[in-house]
Amino acid sequence: MVIKQQDSLKIFAPATVANVNCGFDALGFALEGIGDEMVFRKTTQLGIQITAITGATLPMNAKDNVAGIAANAMLKGIDADFGIAMEIHKKIRPSSGIGSSAASAAGAVFGINQFLENSLDHTSLTQYAMEGEAFASGNNHADNVAPCLYGGITLITSYTPLHIVSLPTPDQVYVGILHPHIKIATKEARAILPEKIPLTAAIKQAQYLSGFVTALYQNDKTLFERSINDALVTPYRKQLIPHFDVIQTIARSNECFAFGISGSGPSLFAFAHQKEHITQYLNAAQSFFTSKNLKVDAYSSKINSKGCYIL
Amino acid sequence: MVIKQQDSLKIFAPATVANVNCGFDALGFALEGIGDEMVFRKTTQLGIQITAITGATLPMNAKDNVAGIAANAMLKGIDADFGIAMEIHKKIRPSSGIGSSAASAAGAVFGINQFLENSLDHTSLTQYAMEGEAFASGNNHADNVAPCLYGGITLITSYTPLHIVSLPTPDQVYVGILHPHIKIATKEARAILPEKIPLTAAIKQAQYLSGFVTALYQNDKTLFERSINDALVTPYRKQLIPHFDVIQTIARSNECFAFGISGSGPSLFAFAHQKEHITQYLNAAQSFFTSKNLKVDAYSSKINSKGCYIL
Repeated sequence: MVIKQQDSLKIFAPATVANVNCGFDALGFALEGIGDEMVFRKTTQLGIQITAITGATLPMNAKDNVAGIAANAMLKGIDADFGIAMEIHKKIRPSSGIGSSAASAAGAVFGINQFLENSLDHTSLTQYAMEGEAFASGNNHADNVAPCLYGGITLITSYTPLHIVSLPTPDQVYVGILHPHIKIATKEARAILPEKIPLTAAIKQAQYLSGFVTALYQNDKTLFERSINDALVTPYRKQLIPHFDVIQTIARSNECFAFGISGSGPSLFAFAHQKEHITQYLNAAQSFFTSKNLKVDAYSSKINSKGCYIL
Repeated sequence: MVIKQQDSLKIFAPATVANVNCGFDALGFALEGIGDEMVFRKTTQLGIQITAITGATLPMNAKDNVAGIAANAMLKGIDADFGIAMEIHKKIRPSSGIGSSAASAAGAVFGINQFLENSLDHTSLTQYAMEGEAFASGNNHADNVAPCLYGGITLITSYTPLHIVSLPTPDQVYVGILHPHIKIATKEARAILPEKIPLTAAIKQAQYLSGFVTALYQNDKTLFERSINDALVTPYRKQLIPHFDVIQTIARSNECFAFGISGSGPSLFAFAHQKEHITQYLNAAQSFFTSKNLKVDAYSSKINSKGCYIL
């Protein structure tokens, strides 16, 4: 598809779940149906202009905006002789823990790449998007932007050099997302982690993550279920989420085989093999949160294999 | 194959390399051509008798012998109404770091299983063999006994419950083993490790091991080469091996793409894509060790996909 200067382009940038228990800073997957929309127009004026933002209160100045920073980094990196006017329609709540800033950053570079006949590969796009993420979280990580761009389940095998692989998507996995309306800053969620952890925990975590990867390639349901576990981070971070243990019990009692914090929270993810179990779990967990006077959003989804796409 | 009471059975139990840099206590592979031989005979007298040991000075009393302990555990576990007379012909030097005790333990249970029409699965055999390993090393690990029994490359995804997977064997990988004649007790090699390690090292190690697994399934040579790396253990243990850094440089300069400590050492393993590179590396490293008045054994091998087998 060749996009003419006067054309505008509308895209979808999905919400994502990072860490997935066993893959801190390495693993992530994209969601279906939950994501931002962005509109792009090529301009003769150089640089990025943000012409509209709906759905959230965010900086209109591109230099202070995650999408603007990623987009500017890309235009600079390719030495662009054009500019971009951009509308951002947020559907993912900022600071919800399902990759709101990543969707803005990844959506921006995905959109611009359409004006370049898709000439930049996913790794390059991820690198530009990471500059936006770094601004948002103070940490140069890619575990949300990678699945947002690639779709499916992605594993970052290395940061220097940046190397990302797409893992096979499991059949029959349904995802439940719960977003309790509490505030956790990514920086705070990082600060709560100890600098040093037991060697035995590191060995376990490597077994979980390698077991997860093996399970996807061998289509081993039991190993998959057992591998979505966290020896590193959840033990420290779960105190940031009110009623974490209760919700985990509700998830288990509704046949969810995996449960954990999405990214740095506060959203929680759960996996089940049947959609009805996710529905039952979300209903029960929502009722519980409501009884505690906590507002909560709930989403049921499958794993999105497409990543960002043109609407 | 049904073995009659009066028949004797001779088996081969391969040497193995554990840890493989990225998979401390989890990863291991079997070698070709280097391994112990054992001879078994069914007896009406219950229990284990060791009737001969050649190649090494080891306890003849089954209760003090790694092979005897594993074999006795198995006979007890299956409530055997027979006994076993066993000869052990050590070709793997004890304490060399290439799974000498594991070969004794795994060979013993593999041999006995032949008298049971192979009725026990690999996981059960590994569990009995681990009892022998625990006696030898003070640590209940399976990263040598598993590849010795299964062959190829094995990953222990979990110890409780014990769960082992066979990973795909890469094409065109040649292995060089160097055994400098120095003594490192497995217990000492464990004691040198810190109890706590940086969280960042744990993340890297999980990326290395999951990258290694991904590389094998995707047949990705570059990722394979880059993943055989160690953020956890080698930085501490390499001081136990004289001239570690020099030998590593010799390996790299002879086109070996991976180099590290085999198990808890002192043996060193290296990988190359061509056999001649392994030969050149081993010659150069041997010359160097000889110049330092250190005796060294050298072996060139491929990855053995069979594990233990009947001779």
